[in-house]
Amino acid sequence: MSGKVVALCGGVGGAKLALGLSHVVPPDDLTIIVNTGDDFEHLGLYVSPDVDTVLYTLAGIGDPVQGWGLAGESWNFMAALERLGGETWFRLGDTDLATHVERTRRLRSGDILTAVTDALARRLGIACAVLPMSDDPVRTVLDTDEGLLDFQHYFVRRQAVPKVRTIRYDGAAKAAPSSAVLAALSDPALAAVIICPSNPWLSIAPLLAIPALSDLLRASGVPVVAVSPLVDGRAVKGPTAKLMVELGHGVSAAAVATFYGDLVTGHILDDSHAFEADAIRETGAHVTVMPTLMTDLDTRIALARRSLDFARQIAHLGVRGSDV
Amino acid sequence: MSGKVVALCGGVGGAKLALGLSHVVPPDDLTIIVNTGDDFEHLGLYVSPDVDTVLYTLAGIGDPVQGWGLAGESWNFMAALERLGGETWFRLGDTDLATHVERTRRLRSGDILTAVTDALARRLGIACAVLPMSDDPVRTVLDTDEGLLDFQHYFVRRQAVPKVRTIRYDGAAKAAPSSAVLAALSDPALAAVIICPSNPWLSIAPLLAIPALSDLLRASGVPVVAVSPLVDGRAVKGPTAKLMVELGHGVSAAAVATFYGDLVTGHILDDSHAFEADAIRETGAHVTVMPTLMTDLDTRIALARRSLDFARQIAHLGVRGSDV
Repeated sequence: MSGKVVALCGGVGGAKLALGLSHVVPPDDLTIIVNTGDDFEHLGLYVSPDVDTVLYTLAGIGDPVQGWGLAGESWNFMAALERLGGETWFRLGDTDLATHVERTRRLRSGDILTAVTDALARRLGIACAVLPMSDDPVRTVLDTDEGLLDFQHYFVRRQAVPKVRTIRYDGAAKAAPSSAVLAALSDPALAAVIICPSNPWLSIAPLLAIPALSDLLRASGVPVVAVSPLVDGRAVKGPTAKLMVELGHGVSAAAVATFYGDLVTGHILDDSHAFEADAIRETGAHVTVMPTLMTDLDTRIALARRSLDFARQIAHLGVRGSDV
Repeated sequence: MSGKVVALCGGVGGAKLALGLSHVVPPDDLTIIVNTGDDFEHLGLYVSPDVDTVLYTLAGIGDPVQGWGLAGESWNFMAALERLGGETWFRLGDTDLATHVERTRRLRSGDILTAVTDALARRLGIACAVLPMSDDPVRTVLDTDEGLLDFQHYFVRRQAVPKVRTIRYDGAAKAAPSSAVLAALSDPALAAVIICPSNPWLSIAPLLAIPALSDLLRASGVPVVAVSPLVDGRAVKGPTAKLMVELGHGVSAAAVATFYGDLVTGHILDDSHAFEADAIRETGAHVTVMPTLMTDLDTRIALARRSLDFARQIAHLGVRGSDV
């Protein structure tokens, strides 16, 4: 499509579509804004898991099986750290560690996260823009039956086992989008925003919890298309379905649509959720149905292309309206 | 020998004798005080090269060929850091890195270097005491024909190529020995101090530059035995000989003895420097001659045993006196 594209993205699932988009949209026209609500300091290092997943995926060096981390990773650091009695619940590969060490060093030297991320992306040969959602700290904290848990403690240390009652995005209310995010979302050439099929509550909500960021999305006047993360009533990966039940939403594409509300003007449902399309259309949003499972590069590119086609159709029809 | 033994130690050469001592002296009776003048912060990590060389050597996990670092090390972190444009002149192995990360984390959490070193030593199964010379920062800085260089920049980055004019031990005048060092050197059961064959100017001088530490050595009343680092007019490893020339001392065991002055009561010379023994004896110090090249564990143990024998003889004869 002509015009610029912004993608909002979390980790594994979102990065797959971001990769597809990077094959379809010219690099100068593509900006990927990434959740940093999962960022944390671990072992004295600043770790930015979703940003790294996006960087590694776009650079073609990610682990193709687990979807995060690096292909061909070695784990000698972790083994040595275990021998020394260090904390080993969050697994940092030897190669991955270089990213955290270099990012931390640059942040300590006074660089902002946006600049550090950009430098890493350039070194990894990524041509499009990858932007952390903010240079201010936003931290996703879960209130669970095991008490308040920081995101990584919930997600990695406790393997998403605790039952979640509510989710907070600490710092979001005071956080500002970076100037690069502001520029991307207020660019007159912006033609579409794609919300990748990341977990809406864990990966996309932290972005939307930044007031100026969701205000910009609403004010953009361009189609905002969300790809539902649900296939066959489950998330492809991760605790989305379990979390939806715990939060009282039920596991449905309609619940995702309700969560996004009028911020999203077009919903892409997987074929397996076609039965929900009419109910969502009744809310006034556009809906289309297609295969959303991304098993290889071809399916990622296909979903990216069809997502942009859908956004283009919405633009022609008006951002709210009838079936597409 | 009965009684407690303190060894003063730098990196590679010193660690070999420290290992020998650890096989000869009961662990509760052996304290190894290690130079921290080479410590530096690199990539945001607190690196303590001499302490690590001693720890790895005593734990039996050191690289037997290069004498520093870990056996079977892998270098995937460095390769990844290079890809990201990070600083790679100081080589940090994947396994070694765990030591720096864990040490840095503990220091940042408020532990003192002595406590962190002790915890690492315990985890690595080391039974004797390994003490950094001070918890205060002392930094060896070299004034060279390329300007002022911090130790690692001189030693590693510039491979000891610059010509050294003078050496400073920044912070030493204000540094205090740790309470553990004070206790070891003022222990009534102390029977001998062994100065390992480390570079006197680079590895031992930083310890002696701490006023309270050299005062304690002088006041100890026990034999202080220095093993000369010179074999065949050269250091076994490292820039000792080159440095001695640059500092105007000439390369001789006598120059080492002159440098240590009356702080050292007994000198052990390598067989190849037997011709220097009489000249050093004329200064009033005890001198003995033996093979000092440590090529394997047996020769390390042998040198340790003979060093202690020499100290015992000196104790019988009086700390200053005639030939032994």
